Amino acid sequence: MNTGRQGRRFVALCGGVGGAKLAFGLARVLGPDQLLVVVNTGDDFEHLGLPICPDLDTVLYTLAGQNNPALGWGRADESWTAYKEMQRLGGADWFQLGDKDIGLHLARRHLFDSGKTLSAVMKVLAERLGVTTPIVPMSDEPVRTMVHTDQGKLAFQEYFVGHKCAPAVRAIEFAGAANATPSPDFAAALGDPDLAGFIICPSNPFLSIDPILAIPGVRHALSRTNAPVVAVTPLIGGQAVKGPAAKILQELELPVTPMSVAARYDGFLDGFILDRRDAELSGAFPASVRVGVEQTLMVSDDDKTALADAAIAFVRRIRKGASPS
Amino acid sequence: MNTGRQGRRFVALCGGVGGAKLAFGLARVLGPDQLLVVVNTGDDFEHLGLPICPDLDTVLYTLAGQNNPALGWGRADESWTAYKEMQRLGGADWFQLGDKDIGLHLARRHLFDSGKTLSAVMKVLAERLGVTTPIVPMSDEPVRTMVHTDQGKLAFQEYFVGHKCAPAVRAIEFAGAANATPSPDFAAALGDPDLAGFIICPSNPFLSIDPILAIPGVRHALSRTNAPVVAVTPLIGGQAVKGPAAKILQELELPVTPMSVAARYDGFLDGFILDRRDAELSGAFPASVRVGVEQTLMVSDDDKTALADAAIAFVRRIRKGASPS
Repeated sequence: MNTGRQGRRFVALCGGVGGAKLAFGLARVLGPDQLLVVVNTGDDFEHLGLPICPDLDTVLYTLAGQNNPALGWGRADESWTAYKEMQRLGGADWFQLGDKDIGLHLARRHLFDSGKTLSAVMKVLAERLGVTTPIVPMSDEPVRTMVHTDQGKLAFQEYFVGHKCAPAVRAIEFAGAANATPSPDFAAALGDPDLAGFIICPSNPFLSIDPILAIPGVRHALSRTNAPVVAVTPLIGGQAVKGPAAKILQELELPVTPMSVAARYDGFLDGFILDRRDAELSGAFPASVRVGVEQTLMVSDDDKTALADAAIAFVRRIRKGASPS
Repeated sequence: MNTGRQGRRFVALCGGVGGAKLAFGLARVLGPDQLLVVVNTGDDFEHLGLPICPDLDTVLYTLAGQNNPALGWGRADESWTAYKEMQRLGGADWFQLGDKDIGLHLARRHLFDSGKTLSAVMKVLAERLGVTTPIVPMSDEPVRTMVHTDQGKLAFQEYFVGHKCAPAVRAIEFAGAANATPSPDFAAALGDPDLAGFIICPSNPFLSIDPILAIPGVRHALSRTNAPVVAVTPLIGGQAVKGPAAKILQELELPVTPMSVAARYDGFLDGFILDRRDAELSGAFPASVRVGVEQTLMVSDDDKTALADAAIAFVRRIRKGASPS
């Protein structure tokens, strides 16, 4: 049953940089009514009173063409006047904040103070930045990733930025997840009987995708949807393109392979896109998971668009319930 | 009794711009151990998560030579990147914030978060800005000026910045003052038997000085001190040099005269410095108040130093308990 354009939407689940690159490609290929980008909020935190949503902002800046590719985070054409003055005057200096970035956080604070939900706030920010693809948080309620490490329990940003991912991870907790609900647009998509498919972007499975899956009802909805669920590998040649995914797999005593990533999505995964360099691993996946092989490293905008095209085509080739071969 | 240099300190009570100018002059004339600047905090507020202390910051920036004389508030050599971006993205735009100013507020937030009192925070900021004169808040506890107007009860910054002082003032309330205590350095000065004198700077009596006087014990201590208490007029020729002092006097149906200002300090005032242009009012003060006449308009730094010298000399001429003539 096809209820029209609106009904054939793709839902992308993603975290920060890597996920944002594929989301950028998808947004180039799909119209704003054909794509919903659902973003991890487990990294969100309040820093010096500023409400900071690292993954949402990375996706937003990337889709707005205003991300900073040199840094890998933050805004293009950024200045650092406020941050430098803060440092000079005795402020905290472990988390860098550009002037424009601060402007966005202050705007978000104002929009929160006026009673808006995070979903509503992101709609305003996206509109002002000229982004038409809907970007929504996984939840409007706070979920906070806590990393249990050999150096104790750390809030996500302490682990990720403060300690530069150095402590060994023992376990990861998503505080608040048990009482959170999917954001309205995410919930509607999860209940939509006519989606084109779910695409799990090449994001860290533990830190970016697991928080989304930790919200009650999400795993169940993914296991029940008649739309294909496909993941794109965040690992190439046994290494993460960016971030601590490989390191965490080792610390959790799991093989540093794409199959370990796929195993995180056991129970709802229909397809997995491997990188070309890992093509020989195609046979190592369970029979229930169809495997595609693509160029997954995204350097240029064309790479992003090509991978988006490939992921969409891969999803469309999958018929749920049909033989994966 | 003179217990040494430390014991012959002057205490300046002040608000924002006008007070800061005289404080600047006093700081040029007196050593850091001869002056304590006690500043109104009734205008303080939290804006978009930033802890903002307008009068303290004006005094700090002025003494650091980093105030913005063109604007009359904020920092010299300021940029507005964060604020412009905030505006563009849907943030509140009634209260302007420069990038460096934001840097200071973020540093203050960090210092607060680390458990410091406002007094301790200001010590760090002053040190980092190279200001050696001690600048302390009237209290480390929050006191918030609320302006009852013909348009309802307004928080101070709503009245002052948001409404540009347009609503007619009916009464002024200092929320929290009844439970506040003088900051440690202010309390020590109030209890010091060997001060050189108190100088009430040319600040708005209702909005800048009254909040200081509203803290329990302050009026009593001023009425009991053996140090002369002298005020410098904020009115020249029936007008306030800056701000709504004259307008508020009218709205409260009080004569717009220096005598009305002096009357606010009834019970502890020993001397009052009139501007030259108002010399003919010298005879209109109560016999208990000695009157000086000076050039009180401070345009150049030399004006500030000259008025400071004059105020110090005036205080030194006053012998408490002696005839004022």
